[in-house]
Amino acid sequence: MADYRTLSHQQLEQLRRELVDRYEQFQQQGLKLDMSRGKPAADQFDLVSGLLDAVNSQSSLLAADGVDCRNYGDFTGIPECKAIFCEMLGVSFDEIFICGNSSLAVMYDALGKMMLHGVRPGAKPWCREGNLKFLCPVPGYDRHFAITERYGFEMIPIEMTPEGPDMDQVERLVAADSSIKGIWCVPKYSNPQGITYSDETVRRLARMKTAADDFIIMWDNAYAVHDLYPEHRDHLLNILAECKAAGDPDRVMMFASTSKISYAGAGIAVFACSKGMMERMKKLLTIQTIGFDKINMLRHARYFKNLDGIMAHMDRQAELLRPKFRTVLDAFERELAGKGVAEWLNPNGGYFISLDVMDGCAKRVVQLCKDAGVTLTSAGATFPYGRDPRDRNIRVAPTYPTIPELEQAVALLCICVQLAAVEKLLRD
Amino acid sequence: MADYRTLSHQQLEQLRRELVDRYEQFQQQGLKLDMSRGKPAADQFDLVSGLLDAVNSQSSLLAADGVDCRNYGDFTGIPECKAIFCEMLGVSFDEIFICGNSSLAVMYDALGKMMLHGVRPGAKPWCREGNLKFLCPVPGYDRHFAITERYGFEMIPIEMTPEGPDMDQVERLVAADSSIKGIWCVPKYSNPQGITYSDETVRRLARMKTAADDFIIMWDNAYAVHDLYPEHRDHLLNILAECKAAGDPDRVMMFASTSKISYAGAGIAVFACSKGMMERMKKLLTIQTIGFDKINMLRHARYFKNLDGIMAHMDRQAELLRPKFRTVLDAFERELAGKGVAEWLNPNGGYFISLDVMDGCAKRVVQLCKDAGVTLTSAGATFPYGRDPRDRNIRVAPTYPTIPELEQAVALLCICVQLAAVEKLLRD
Repeated sequence: MADYRTLSHQQLEQLRRELVDRYEQFQQQGLKLDMSRGKPAADQFDLVSGLLDAVNSQSSLLAADGVDCRNYGDFTGIPECKAIFCEMLGVSFDEIFICGNSSLAVMYDALGKMMLHGVRPGAKPWCREGNLKFLCPVPGYDRHFAITERYGFEMIPIEMTPEGPDMDQVERLVAADSSIKGIWCVPKYSNPQGITYSDETVRRLARMKTAADDFIIMWDNAYAVHDLYPEHRDHLLNILAECKAAGDPDRVMMFASTSKISYAGAGIAVFACSKGMMERMKKLLTIQTIGFDKINMLRHARYFKNLDGIMAHMDRQAELLRPKFRTVLDAFERELAGKGVAEWLNPNGGYFISLDVMDGCAKRVVQLCKDAGVTLTSAGATFPYGRDPRDRNIRVAPTYPTIPELEQAVALLCICVQLAAVEKLLRD
Repeated sequence: MADYRTLSHQQLEQLRRELVDRYEQFQQQGLKLDMSRGKPAADQFDLVSGLLDAVNSQSSLLAADGVDCRNYGDFTGIPECKAIFCEMLGVSFDEIFICGNSSLAVMYDALGKMMLHGVRPGAKPWCREGNLKFLCPVPGYDRHFAITERYGFEMIPIEMTPEGPDMDQVERLVAADSSIKGIWCVPKYSNPQGITYSDETVRRLARMKTAADDFIIMWDNAYAVHDLYPEHRDHLLNILAECKAAGDPDRVMMFASTSKISYAGAGIAVFACSKGMMERMKKLLTIQTIGFDKINMLRHARYFKNLDGIMAHMDRQAELLRPKFRTVLDAFERELAGKGVAEWLNPNGGYFISLDVMDGCAKRVVQLCKDAGVTLTSAGATFPYGRDPRDRNIRVAPTYPTIPELEQAVALLCICVQLAAVEKLLRD
């Protein structure tokens, strides 16, 4: 099929009629499918059902260090659980803290502490400064942007490249403006594009000169072990090690969780940072809580045992997710390639596929899908303030639907992408 | 035995020698006992071991409304868990929110939201106001005071009476000073005295005129069902109902948890408030997290079933705690009564016994105990900034030690209380 941009008005009109026909057939099917969030499917959870038996009334409830997990104690987490995440993130025992079920809550809380108390050793509370800015690589994770918006930051979009955020732009901005306090990063299998930051990008983030002496990299390593292809695991450089090497160990706060490993609602979240910053965080966290849920930590540690246990589980999970990603990507390739109406990446892991439709068409595509019963993530959601300046990015979340549902949904999506493009070409 | 304050110098010297002898015998025993915190004992946890079997790999993981507890969803908590806390706190389904494992963290977070965003509908963020004050009934809970201290509040101590905080003082202060933003309350079996607020106190809190239009009552109902004597359960008026009746439903935020019901480290915490404030909190919490641990909610709901299930369990727990409380109180009665050296209350529930020693002696008593191997809560800890102006209050936490340990510890404590008093009388 030819590039739609080369077609005549008459050809486009013909095409529009065909697409509308096919679209109306979908409308008549009465689909009802929600693909708006990156939700795991039930079969993923079934893979870890043994987690619920890992601790029962007959189990010892003592952690490896003898602490009774039913009681207060082990403020920073139980040692066997810390060991797993230390291995996952490449940090040491005194650089990690095991929290509750939500890494988002940990990030919200960490930024809240920066706002009210200052977290980097010696840093002042940001809430006393008038003008606060945060760098937001785009497309990115809407819930990150919602946090910095809520705290009152002006959010500056940074273009993503195949190697991560556009570092020329980042370096120029942070060197010049001390009101830029940090950057959001999903460094491995980024949400939504599935891009893994190159070594060069990680090193430049660690080494760049920042006008703010309390600049923080919010390193949300949400998909650290979420490879789709065991034979091709993306490699991510250890940014904490790089920050130490660059002489600024307090520049980064790392986050991870098992929300997309064990249970989306009942997993374990962690943060990691330099020892200096950890001392500060511990002092602040002591005010806040007597400790997090150690029985759930114990459950996870006894079930997965170690990072190998997690990797083996993730490979089984990948077997469920690969066909779903393939269903979407094959349809894109079959229906959209060469037509000049869309671009996408083929991620090696993560939870999403990012689809760039023709400029000015994303909202129309999402609306068309919705009107035929398929709810996608809102157009613009992957940008600060929900504003995609080119109105082209759509986040596709393939994990939750079944493959037959996904086939229908993506077939509809491909029609809508083409229809919106043709409508636009006819208008122009 | 006569009141020590009536003894001659010679009699006091004689008494001091006897007490020092007995104290030194204790020192030689090499005791090593930590009674500094209100920790549950392992036998309390053993009572609820079935909780760990309430959900296993064979269980349905669907909540009563069909939501899969392993996945995202049911943002405010699963219905069967909400039902239990609604009954416990006397609130409706849309007035309650089920959170993670720590009510302290929920309180810290709620005040953090008041600082940064404002929580009462229409309220401004407090961090923009220069001068913030908070009322702190004393003696009280050190971790409450640590939170308001951390947020930069000036803390104003309010004397406790047998009916709760001195309401004459409270009413006078809040009417006159708009920088007083709230009050900490542990309204039932208060920490550490075990006092339950009278109906009159609750009503006056709900009705009093406050100069601040965003005044908040932090109602930490930590011991809502923690009766020691099933035949005598203290009654607490529903303050949310009273605030509604008084025309200011947004004045109170209620908190509770199962930390002293199921597991100190792995229970469930909740907050409750008016519908108007809940709408505001939900909007703010949506930024922060996709949801709390629903599998732990399910575990608790399936195990306890309803409030009756919790009450039956708490009566069994009371059987373990009553002899511990009695051990302490009987020793106080036997060793300290009538000597003019100490006063205490006999609580009907809760987790602590509050001991007022002779003015100026609390630090000395705690130090003497420590030097003989028994660590008590630091003297002054029950007051803002750790400063007990009369240096007399000691919080005794009888739950964690065994009864033989407790007998030893309290025998030592009674000697130290008398010794410190005699030392003081000899100095004066």
